[in-house]
Amino acid sequence: MGEFELIRRFFTRPTPKAVVGVGDDCAVLQVAPGMQMAISTDMLVAGRHFFHDVDPRSLGHKALAVNLSDLAACGARPMAFTLALALPEANPAWLQAFSEGLWALADSHGCELVGGDTTQGPLTINITVFGEVPASQPGPTGQPGTQALLRSGARVGDDIYVSGHLGDARLALEERLGHIELPPEVRAAVSRRLDWPTPRIALGLALRAVASAAADISDGLVGDLGHILDQSGVGATINASLAIELIASKSYFTRAEAQFDQYNSEQLMRRCVFSGGDDYELVFTASPHRRSAVLAASAAAATPVTRIGQIERAPGLRLIDANAQPMTNTFASFDHFAN
Amino acid sequence: MGEFELIRRFFTRPTPKAVVGVGDDCAVLQVAPGMQMAISTDMLVAGRHFFHDVDPRSLGHKALAVNLSDLAACGARPMAFTLALALPEANPAWLQAFSEGLWALADSHGCELVGGDTTQGPLTINITVFGEVPASQPGPTGQPGTQALLRSGARVGDDIYVSGHLGDARLALEERLGHIELPPEVRAAVSRRLDWPTPRIALGLALRAVASAAADISDGLVGDLGHILDQSGVGATINASLAIELIASKSYFTRAEAQFDQYNSEQLMRRCVFSGGDDYELVFTASPHRRSAVLAASAAAATPVTRIGQIERAPGLRLIDANAQPMTNTFASFDHFAN
Repeated sequence: MGEFELIRRFFTRPTPKAVVGVGDDCAVLQVAPGMQMAISTDMLVAGRHFFHDVDPRSLGHKALAVNLSDLAACGARPMAFTLALALPEANPAWLQAFSEGLWALADSHGCELVGGDTTQGPLTINITVFGEVPASQPGPTGQPGTQALLRSGARVGDDIYVSGHLGDARLALEERLGHIELPPEVRAAVSRRLDWPTPRIALGLALRAVASAAADISDGLVGDLGHILDQSGVGATINASLAIELIASKSYFTRAEAQFDQYNSEQLMRRCVFSGGDDYELVFTASPHRRSAVLAASAAAATPVTRIGQIERAPGLRLIDANAQPMTNTFASFDHFAN
Repeated sequence: MGEFELIRRFFTRPTPKAVVGVGDDCAVLQVAPGMQMAISTDMLVAGRHFFHDVDPRSLGHKALAVNLSDLAACGARPMAFTLALALPEANPAWLQAFSEGLWALADSHGCELVGGDTTQGPLTINITVFGEVPASQPGPTGQPGTQALLRSGARVGDDIYVSGHLGDARLALEERLGHIELPPEVRAAVSRRLDWPTPRIALGLALRAVASAAADISDGLVGDLGHILDQSGVGATINASLAIELIASKSYFTRAEAQFDQYNSEQLMRRCVFSGGDDYELVFTASPHRRSAVLAASAAAATPVTRIGQIERAPGLRLIDANAQPMTNTFASFDHFAN
């Protein structure tokens, strides 16, 4: 199977919304009047972001999901994506499963594959995704404004929220790395969270006029909230005990069995919740005056959200326990060149 | 050096044209009223598209150039790009040189780096580039039209042109593979064409209202013209002898010395001109009534163009010699999974 046959067979479909789709030198997209284009790109490398023997169907899903998650964090509506794929060989069964996982998620968001590149090489997937967000009034110096949810918008006094549950994906990873053992039903549940993450598109859209800042949690809550704090020039306190109580799947952690001596289910849970990546939930901030609007957005998107802390003037992130005593924050964010 | 330090140090610059640039979940671009966004993506893999010991400065240039070349082929004006980079290690000297090559070309086209991704892995570069093209009147069914130069627009009777010279980049590759030897000054000239290709942006823009179809020559003239023929539902005849005479750097080929027995300078030249990739010139078609407009576009863009054949009704591509006798067309296009 040659390169063009591969593209035709697995990666070409009608693109009713794109002006020009797959097959020309460029794709051409029309942005509606008053809208802007939000763009994000993520590269997944075999052996680094996923195991070589991963189910190709879940890989197709996840490669797009992690990109859609960035659109969600900006409050953008998915439009289209490009796919660049390096493959050791053109294996039809693998490509069939990979493309099915990809298309299922793409179709559920009306997100069209409009172009790409295919080459031989170590298994690497790079998706670039395009979404629409409304422009806002130009600023005082005439520069165009945006209604996109940015990391820089958190203000002192804002509440801090996270969506869904945190830590499950990291728990699944710990199991795959052989650090712990899990009962089969727990393994199935957390594996699904690691392999089939749900980008919070509906929540991002519902939060557009409500949240002051947002990011998706790909590298861990502490690290990703840290980006919001840095870029907003603020600090925060999180009630860590309360957060654990509300956003960890506690029963999963208590049923994990250590494979090594130095193991503590409480520590594992904290580490997974605060610095576990791969959950692809949203962390966002909103004024305390918007609490009912946040709840309405959560209900409209059918996505639970939990208030876990407050934005403060003093820089840095402070974790406190149930007695308001400071906890040591040793939760590093994931860094591809430091781990 | 961690991931964020790497991005900050080598890949972050002000983005005055983008609404949101590097550092948030998404970049946000504003498309001017009446314009559309043209998008292309190319992935370069070490050992496949370039040698592991390639000069990182030229690699930075080329990774962007091959993408800009796709914008040129659509007649789009460069706006912005994203960069996804897998690196075996964070080597500051390598990154400094790579980023300098990248920025020099980006700056010369006013093309802003607005986002990306950096990870550890086998050296792989994936750039996605964004350009602007004017929309045109909607079609009869209301779908938006485009002034982008497409591969599907060639009509029976149109002239076929190529820009610049063809074959130099492939000649350089043959030398690097040890198939031939070249005098130092020839090696320097053709190496420059292989390592530092010039995307024909100015020519693409000048041809927007003139050419009927266009593609860039990345996989070889026969293959890339073949895409135009397929997508336009037409065939063509090329005067191969005349084409060689006008678009090959003949003196380079006559000075190549074979390292093996079965070698013929005439054959080498034909192969390099007709199926050598990596030249990143444009092949395009235009009505014979637009010959003076084509010459004016060529002059305005300071880029030579050569008329080499004609679009015909009969499918397929025919090469004829100086006596109008058919030549066997054995010039395969490059295919990543068939070569």
